[in-house]
Amino acid sequence: MKPIGKTRWAIAEGYIPATSSGPAPQMTSHETVCILNAGDEDADVRITVFYADKEPADSYRVCVPARRTRHIRFNDLRPAISVGTDFASVVEASVPIVVQHTRLDSRQAENALLSTIAYAE
Amino acid sequence: MKPIGKTRWAIAEGYIPATSSGPAPQMTSHETVCILNAGDEDADVRITVFYADKEPADSYRVCVPARRTRHIRFNDLRPAISVGTDFASVVEASVPIVVQHTRLDSRQAENALLSTIAYAE
Amino acid sequence: MKPIGKTRWAIAEGYIPATSSGPAPQMTSHETVCILNAGDEDADVRITVFYADKEPADSYRVCVPARRTRHIRFNDLRPAISVGTDFASVVEASVPIVVQHTRLDSRQAENALLSTIAYAE
Amino acid sequence: MKPIGKTRWAIAEGYIPATSSGPAPQMTSHETVCILNAGDEDADVRITVFYADKEPADSYRVCVPARRTRHIRFNDLRPAISVGTDFASVVEASVPIVVQHTRLDSRQAENALLSTIAYAE
Repeated sequence: MKPIGKTRWAIAEGYIPATSSGPAPQMTSHETVCILNAGDEDADVRITVFYADKEPADSYRVCVPARRTRHIRFNDLRPAISVGTDFASVVEASVPIVVQHTRLDSRQAENALLSTIAYAE
Repeated sequence: MKPIGKTRWAIAEGYIPATSSGPAPQMTSHETVCILNAGDEDADVRITVFYADKEPADSYRVCVPARRTRHIRFNDLRPAISVGTDFASVVEASVPIVVQHTRLDSRQAENALLSTIAYAE
Repeated sequence: MKPIGKTRWAIAEGYIPATSSGPAPQMTSHETVCILNAGDEDADVRITVFYADKEPADSYRVCVPARRTRHIRFNDLRPAISVGTDFASVVEASVPIVVQHTRLDSRQAENALLSTIAYAE
Repeated sequence: MKPIGKTRWAIAEGYIPATSSGPAPQMTSHETVCILNAGDEDADVRITVFYADKEPADSYRVCVPARRTRHIRFNDLRPAISVGTDFASVVEASVPIVVQHTRLDSRQAENALLSTIAYAE
């Protein structure tokens, strides 16, 4: 399939709720970046995390193989992003990808969800 | 009416929650692709589903007639997409369409919703 | 202020939940189109509603005055859109506007929300 | 990092729920504009708020420093925006930024969330 997407994306929202209700890992409060690489070349992806009051973190590197999707929880990145902290991110790739941002918040007894396609250019 | 939209769309997020609360089919946890064909020609639509750890599924074909909308639950596609599995999709059409992605998650007692216009090019 | 936006927008998702919990009208399940007219000329807006199995409804006309926003509940349009029915919409305006789609679903005891900027061209 | 984004954004939806459940400030019902300035120059940002039935408010000024994100609650802007009132906003910046809109609604016992990337031009 012909690749689809862009190589530079941004998500201005970011926040990992500090607490959770319900069985882990499914119902653990999480912040996710969903990446689709529909093309025939592996994508070398770099995620840079920005904060309100300090310099951007060293960036994270992930590979999204050709014709695959990866839904990456910010919770799982190491070094870890602090919970309960405002952040934002820029996602850059070696080939066109599509990026969507989703949060599951289970701080209260019933979970809440949000999602949006990220900003591309 | 003059057609509106594009012929190639992508949704990087995809996940059918494995359980539900409340009366089916209305409150069954579902993942939906909403397609609008505002123009005067029927749209021949192909949905390709991508996974984290295997090759894309054979694609699904649907028709969205002229001046109609179809809200298609990924739950209803056959062969079936496994529940509780990360996926993503590319939607291609023979004429311009508009694509929006919605999930209703009723794993817990009260439902949660997310929605976003898909990425177009 | 210089106008911002486009004159043609589409929302592929549309569904007015048939039931509600909590005090009306605030917590009544609703589907809303939010329109911003940031410019100095009134916007003459036409909303055309599309269905799954019948021809588009006669379109609805609304005015969004210069430098005003209007959040219009699809529930309030007359002739009425049936509840519990899939629909989609195209929003056309005489001057540039910005369109966002929001739903509050209170079928269950606790409400759920979704929102997305519409598709523009 | 090379800047990403645009200098003019709009959010057509805006509503601060009048009541809340759960511990403040975390679970207080709020409406947020998330701004990312990934570039190397501080962003001088102006937020203009539009209403349904009166002229736009005097605009608010905020600074988003280089390589920082700020998640600004509309609840915290002064002079205050009335709760339970429809509004919309235009966000303009001196350098490219990315803007995302999020609401946490805790009027009922369990919270609901919505989010979308704003409209850019």
